[in-house]
Amino acid sequence: MSRLGHEVLAAVLQVRSRSLQVLLWQRAREPQVGRWALPGGRLGAVEDVESSVRRQLAEKVDVRQLSHVEQLAVFSAPDRMPGPRVLATAFLGLVPSDNDPELPEDTRWFPIDDLPKTAFDHEAIVLRARDRLRSKLSYTNLGFALAPPTFTVSELRGVYSAALGHRVSATNLQRVLTRRGQLEATGQTAGSGPTGGRPAALFRFTCRDMFITDPFAVLRPPTVRS
Amino acid sequence: MSRLGHEVLAAVLQVRSRSLQVLLWQRAREPQVGRWALPGGRLGAVEDVESSVRRQLAEKVDVRQLSHVEQLAVFSAPDRMPGPRVLATAFLGLVPSDNDPELPEDTRWFPIDDLPKTAFDHEAIVLRARDRLRSKLSYTNLGFALAPPTFTVSELRGVYSAALGHRVSATNLQRVLTRRGQLEATGQTAGSGPTGGRPAALFRFTCRDMFITDPFAVLRPPTVRS
Repeated sequence: MSRLGHEVLAAVLQVRSRSLQVLLWQRAREPQVGRWALPGGRLGAVEDVESSVRRQLAEKVDVRQLSHVEQLAVFSAPDRMPGPRVLATAFLGLVPSDNDPELPEDTRWFPIDDLPKTAFDHEAIVLRARDRLRSKLSYTNLGFALAPPTFTVSELRGVYSAALGHRVSATNLQRVLTRRGQLEATGQTAGSGPTGGRPAALFRFTCRDMFITDPFAVLRPPTVRS
Repeated sequence: MSRLGHEVLAAVLQVRSRSLQVLLWQRAREPQVGRWALPGGRLGAVEDVESSVRRQLAEKVDVRQLSHVEQLAVFSAPDRMPGPRVLATAFLGLVPSDNDPELPEDTRWFPIDDLPKTAFDHEAIVLRARDRLRSKLSYTNLGFALAPPTFTVSELRGVYSAALGHRVSATNLQRVLTRRGQLEATGQTAGSGPTGGRPAALFRFTCRDMFITDPFAVLRPPTVRS
């Protein structure tokens, strides 16, 4: 069997400054010196791809507090990088909006809508990660991984609007997430609002592991439906 | 960068004889001679992983009429196979229930609930494929890839029941798929039933490309909602 290189790459996404942003580092060497790349690196001899991407994120960009990590896809076009062939297993990683990981000098967050010049096929990986996130916000409870531990509905609306790329109604968002059993009130409030109005209630997600929130309910076995 | 082997593997699933089945071939050589394995093989020098899996399925098991193919995941445990390290990109493939591909001597369909002794980590790949299919039957229109081009509601119920692993109500199934815009009547009937009753109406899926059928509707931009 021919032998190929294999790297792991992570599109780490976070809602920052009202936009969905991705973590990139600037290449200091050829090929493509100066271009911005996804964090990652080669797969080690005694680790699987998920262990590898978690290790490399922790080592290289101090992102230890990922709220969610999942495989996106293998990127395998023969010409995706110059030189000997290298395949990449790409991951989606999410960081809650209240975290601000310390970053090395060469690393920055960029709005996905305003990416700098990226290396190799990394822009395609970023867009795939964004699309996966948007899909999963619709059919899973994955919002938990973008939101802080507790939040007002208005704050949550901001997170969803940034992630989805369009303005979301706070009323509809609260109604749908509550109906799906994703949201619960903490019993606390955020203090009086900026206009001195009634203090806003604080909510949290009921579950911080991903599950499909709207399965094909009528097709479930009867014993599970009640 | 260290060099690794890379193979592609396909869990090709079909509803046959009222059960969800997977295509396996019997290994004729060590290691693990006699065990049953997923079709696939090593990634070629000038193809990406999806081209490779489609080529190898066509060459080895004459499965050219796949109704759906998607990447499942990379399987990368360092000890997943004996010998030099090999990573696998695994795919889910689906074949409509009315197809009966010609198979080589060493290849057979097996019910996923009654697998023979499988090679390496292939059973884990089969179960991952089954779970992916079941999830996608809930939040996408993927039923089209398992069903024949036209079908009665009773036939479709049989397909869904086998794929989901529990009995599904034909009434509920028709109601939900119709409400989601997935089903349409062909205007034709299947001929009189076995008891000489009223001929059953024939239906088809409105779309044979996968899409998410129940997106987070209230969060869509207003222009798309109408």
